[in-house]
Amino acid sequence: MQLEGTLNHSSERENLSETSHNKSLLLAEPWKPCRRTRAIVKEWLMKLISCLGTVCGMEWYAYAALGILTAILSFLMDLSVTKLLTAHQWLYVKLEGNSLLQFFCWTLYPACLCAVASSFSHNICPFSTGSGIPEVRTMLAGIEMPHYLSLTNMFTKFLGLICTLAAGSTVFLGKVGPFVHLSTMVGVYLSNLCTLVQAKNKEKAAGEILVVASAVGVASCFGAPISGVLFSVEVMSSHFALRHYCPCFFSAVCGALTFRLFSVWSGDGETLRALFKTNFPTTLPFYPLEILLFAFLGLLCGAVSCCYLFCHRWILQFTKTNPMFNKMLTTEKALYSGMVVFFLASLTFPHSVGQYMASKHTMKQLLTSLLDSRQWSSHSHNASVQPLLEWSSPGSAVHLSLTVFLLMKMWMLVLACTLPLPAGYVMPVFVYGAALGRLLGEGVAYVSATGLTSGQQWGSINPGGYALAGAAAFSGAVTHTLSPALLALELTGEFSHAVPIFLATLLANAVARSGHRPSFYDALSISKRLPHLPSLMKACPQLLSTPVGQVLGEKSVQLQKAAVPMEVQHAVNTSTETQIPVVDSHDSQVLLGFVLRSELLMFLRHCKTEVLEKHLDEVCRIYPNSVLLSPHNTVQEAHSILSFIGHQTLFVADRGRLIGLITWPEMKRIIEDLAREM
Amino acid sequence: MQLEGTLNHSSERENLSETSHNKSLLLAEPWKPCRRTRAIVKEWLMKLISCLGTVCGMEWYAYAALGILTAILSFLMDLSVTKLLTAHQWLYVKLEGNSLLQFFCWTLYPACLCAVASSFSHNICPFSTGSGIPEVRTMLAGIEMPHYLSLTNMFTKFLGLICTLAAGSTVFLGKVGPFVHLSTMVGVYLSNLCTLVQAKNKEKAAGEILVVASAVGVASCFGAPISGVLFSVEVMSSHFALRHYCPCFFSAVCGALTFRLFSVWSGDGETLRALFKTNFPTTLPFYPLEILLFAFLGLLCGAVSCCYLFCHRWILQFTKTNPMFNKMLTTEKALYSGMVVFFLASLTFPHSVGQYMASKHTMKQLLTSLLDSRQWSSHSHNASVQPLLEWSSPGSAVHLSLTVFLLMKMWMLVLACTLPLPAGYVMPVFVYGAALGRLLGEGVAYVSATGLTSGQQWGSINPGGYALAGAAAFSGAVTHTLSPALLALELTGEFSHAVPIFLATLLANAVARSGHRPSFYDALSISKRLPHLPSLMKACPQLLSTPVGQVLGEKSVQLQKAAVPMEVQHAVNTSTETQIPVVDSHDSQVLLGFVLRSELLMFLRHCKTEVLEKHLDEVCRIYPNSVLLSPHNTVQEAHSILSFIGHQTLFVADRGRLIGLITWPEMKRIIEDLAREM
Repeated sequence: MQLEGTLNHSSERENLSETSHNKSLLLAEPWKPCRRTRAIVKEWLMKLISCLGTVCGMEWYAYAALGILTAILSFLMDLSVTKLLTAHQWLYVKLEGNSLLQFFCWTLYPACLCAVASSFSHNICPFSTGSGIPEVRTMLAGIEMPHYLSLTNMFTKFLGLICTLAAGSTVFLGKVGPFVHLSTMVGVYLSNLCTLVQAKNKEKAAGEILVVASAVGVASCFGAPISGVLFSVEVMSSHFALRHYCPCFFSAVCGALTFRLFSVWSGDGETLRALFKTNFPTTLPFYPLEILLFAFLGLLCGAVSCCYLFCHRWILQFTKTNPMFNKMLTTEKALYSGMVVFFLASLTFPHSVGQYMASKHTMKQLLTSLLDSRQWSSHSHNASVQPLLEWSSPGSAVHLSLTVFLLMKMWMLVLACTLPLPAGYVMPVFVYGAALGRLLGEGVAYVSATGLTSGQQWGSINPGGYALAGAAAFSGAVTHTLSPALLALELTGEFSHAVPIFLATLLANAVARSGHRPSFYDALSISKRLPHLPSLMKACPQLLSTPVGQVLGEKSVQLQKAAVPMEVQHAVNTSTETQIPVVDSHDSQVLLGFVLRSELLMFLRHCKTEVLEKHLDEVCRIYPNSVLLSPHNTVQEAHSILSFIGHQTLFVADRGRLIGLITWPEMKRIIEDLAREM
Repeated sequence: MQLEGTLNHSSERENLSETSHNKSLLLAEPWKPCRRTRAIVKEWLMKLISCLGTVCGMEWYAYAALGILTAILSFLMDLSVTKLLTAHQWLYVKLEGNSLLQFFCWTLYPACLCAVASSFSHNICPFSTGSGIPEVRTMLAGIEMPHYLSLTNMFTKFLGLICTLAAGSTVFLGKVGPFVHLSTMVGVYLSNLCTLVQAKNKEKAAGEILVVASAVGVASCFGAPISGVLFSVEVMSSHFALRHYCPCFFSAVCGALTFRLFSVWSGDGETLRALFKTNFPTTLPFYPLEILLFAFLGLLCGAVSCCYLFCHRWILQFTKTNPMFNKMLTTEKALYSGMVVFFLASLTFPHSVGQYMASKHTMKQLLTSLLDSRQWSSHSHNASVQPLLEWSSPGSAVHLSLTVFLLMKMWMLVLACTLPLPAGYVMPVFVYGAALGRLLGEGVAYVSATGLTSGQQWGSINPGGYALAGAAAFSGAVTHTLSPALLALELTGEFSHAVPIFLATLLANAVARSGHRPSFYDALSISKRLPHLPSLMKACPQLLSTPVGQVLGEKSVQLQKAAVPMEVQHAVNTSTETQIPVVDSHDSQVLLGFVLRSELLMFLRHCKTEVLEKHLDEVCRIYPNSVLLSPHNTVQEAHSILSFIGHQTLFVADRGRLIGLITWPEMKRIIEDLAREM
């Protein structure tokens, strides 16, 4: 009872202070119109906020709003993309009979869309290109990158992504990565709103919302909350703080629920089911011994992913070193995008090679057809099976189509990754992996049907299960993560295949991670020279042993205990840090603690008005420093301790003497220097 | 190529050094029999190990073995428990007609089993009682508790748990918690084996295996890998290190796979399906507006969990303060267990109150019947529905049975929690929550069937879905975790209900966590006075602000830079630490770093043989200390930094002068002191 009383009392006091704060704000802004209306609206808003605040902290409303807003964005994007894709298909069908016009319709539509997306992002916000996940990882590791979180960037990314996705399976790009980025932008905006009404450490709140937003991004993209949370666990550089766990789940479930409810209400689905409807048999999902085949599939996916990652790293290097490409990509982005997409589209034209690649399918149709549980080889001549017909071009077996698809899409996807527009790279590798798994599954089904396995009676092999496991394993191997396995489960709801899918993903990851090769995102981080330490470590493990003392910048501003106002004035003028170290004397250099910049400013103001000659330690409080680093600590240790203790200043001292201090901007400089040396 | 060459070369060198190490071991133990055979066997083992080592690190084999062994233990336990339960049922049916004999059969069988389990654990290993999860949490927070990891404990816990589970739904206890404990014991044993063949930091390996083992415990208990991993994320005190993520998943998948394969091969299930077969409708799992009812169910479960936790805390306090109970529980454990179980069993006797509580069902049958998707109210008079008949006693509605079940089981479960035998407390609350959800679901189905909701046409309400959500929400609220939600999904494979289940669990958690009440495990930790800092913090938040300087023990042994051999000898004799701090001089006390105990011993040996009078800094290397704490840091900060930097010594210094040092044993002493003051 007493505790509750205290709580009520303190919340009342908060309300009072909020109202007074509100009034002072109003008084401070006398030039704004409609002062009276604004005051009334603000008062009501404050009342609402204090009402809401009694149930739970404001940050929880921010988490819910983040989930709901991101899901609405995702739903709107899906809606627009579907309309644009339908328009393209309608036009293509209307032009039936005239091959030339059909060719131009097929190629120019996506080429124009991608050119528009490129020029849009080039002209409005150049930071909006690419997936955004490498940048989000860097921000999660503690480095501030405000350019990547602006509202302009959000707007550009959203529109650009619609154009990219509307280009369909020709450019073969997805939406997950940009959605994680979009959701962080929404999150930071909401978090700023939240700190406005609630006195809270802004940096800490922003760090928290970034973790939550990365979970929400995946969750509201597909209505898959669990894989969202696992993604946000995996995307962290070394440690996942458990205080983020419940917010992540809460926000992800809000996002997934909203996304699914919107799908239901828009008439897409009857109820809140999985996004991709599969028809796997429930009585006998797979034979126990098929586990070995799933394990083989995992190893295969791992090997193919190594090949893919090698090609990707090569093209990243090539576009940077080749003068022609480099020039095109810096000045003529729209032209480059248009040309590349035109080239890709002319290859996928259904009357050319496209007929062997099921190029008429959209990404979603491709995945749905690959996950079908029926065996294609036995159905390929049955005209009633419409979605499968696409895969069996006249006069060729489905195996041929799948092989052509895999061979062509490999280099086409690598080429598409160079396009300077907002695009996700997870969904394409997911579909690619599904095709790889499907090929193995169809092979197994063919072999078991023709009776080569004399003893076994594997009549009802389900190639869709292999496709699902392949999708999870390949995308897991490319990104060096395990959350795609859960994504595969959540997208289809086929929980009976959980164990084989996880087994394949784990083995694929083991193959892909062997030899300390960088993952897809690591390669992008290194190529973009982002200050992301874990990526640098993978590329250059000797960086692990660089001691802090060696890379520390010039000696920072410091004050001695008995500093006079003039010294304090000088320190305030030259330094921008919020915590300024205090030493015993300039000769001994023994670190005593730090003073806050705000208190120094107050000290100076007092001195000016009262003309007194007091020393620093007589007026300001010298706070004891928390954790001290030694100059022999490595950069990695300093980085992880800095991210562990949050947004504070880390002092480096040797035998009690101050050597320097590390803040996040300083750490960013250190990492960028290391990257330059590499 | 060059890199590969180097790797091969280094692995060859390792082999050589291993063989020589092996030989020197053989030479050092000349008294053992069969030296030749042993040498041959050892050589072959070493060859095998080096072969295995080329594929991946030995720790991965340990992880796989951990999963497989735990799953085999789990399977064996299930098998024995089923046999014992069948024997009891067979005897009970044989005695049909003689109520008195039936009564004795019904009551004495579980009473004897529990008395045996109690006396067994009391006499062989008193540390084996209870669930073991509070102890595992304490060990995961870094405190060493070797008593809880002995092989004797494992043996006692395994046999005791079989007896407890064989007592069936009368005592209403589960197996998850003890299995997590069992799996840590297996894990630590395997890890010791692993460090024997591989030069690796033993403490670090043991810490790693504990995290993995907690995931494996849950995963191999039910064949549910994902909830196992989430459990191990949640069970950590503040941060989850990402380097444990892949090992956790790998080991959990191995365990789940083994468990399911054994189930298949033993003829239990046709293939690797979910443990509890449900029959939820797939076309229309639930109506969108039912989400609100699921949310209400979450709040209800949260409220009931608060009541349950209050009763549990009360009885923990009561058994400690009441002299009679206290005496019984310290000296006459077997008698106490027998009496309590006899009392519980006489209540659940099917001819007494038991007929309203479906007491003939085992735990598994109870859960299966509660998760049934058919509405009981419409089927209760259909004799063909065998499992449901149990719930509809003659002349009473199913709602009555469920209500009686809920009211009785609440206090019976609280009483059963005091039994001093190995038992899990998660499964009972899971079943209890399922009954709570079922009651709401049946109510909704009844209301919608009688047409009170005039506008809506909710013909096909599925009460099983409510039962599943209730189970997840209630067990999540009691333990303050979210992993039960995933456990519910994995146990049934009903992925269509993911979103409502998570929503209910999140809301129930929010209600249960409000007001900073301790969770079930926290209450056990506090009651058992375990040195688990996060639990103490919940009970006593003012501990958060205790500075380290205030609780630090007497000043530790230190050496000055110019120490002579006699001083070194004295330091080695008085201190047991592996790292001994070195100061500039005893007057200045400025910390320079530390020396290793092993080097000091070598220094002393040199001095003895060569009779030289060298100073410490001329012979031993003074290692620079890594992170320095200030005495103003709080105990919580010191604890988290200590767990963050791993098994090292943390030095506390003020203005460069050594104040003391914190190791894990010191931290354990500090926490125990704090708990005593509480």
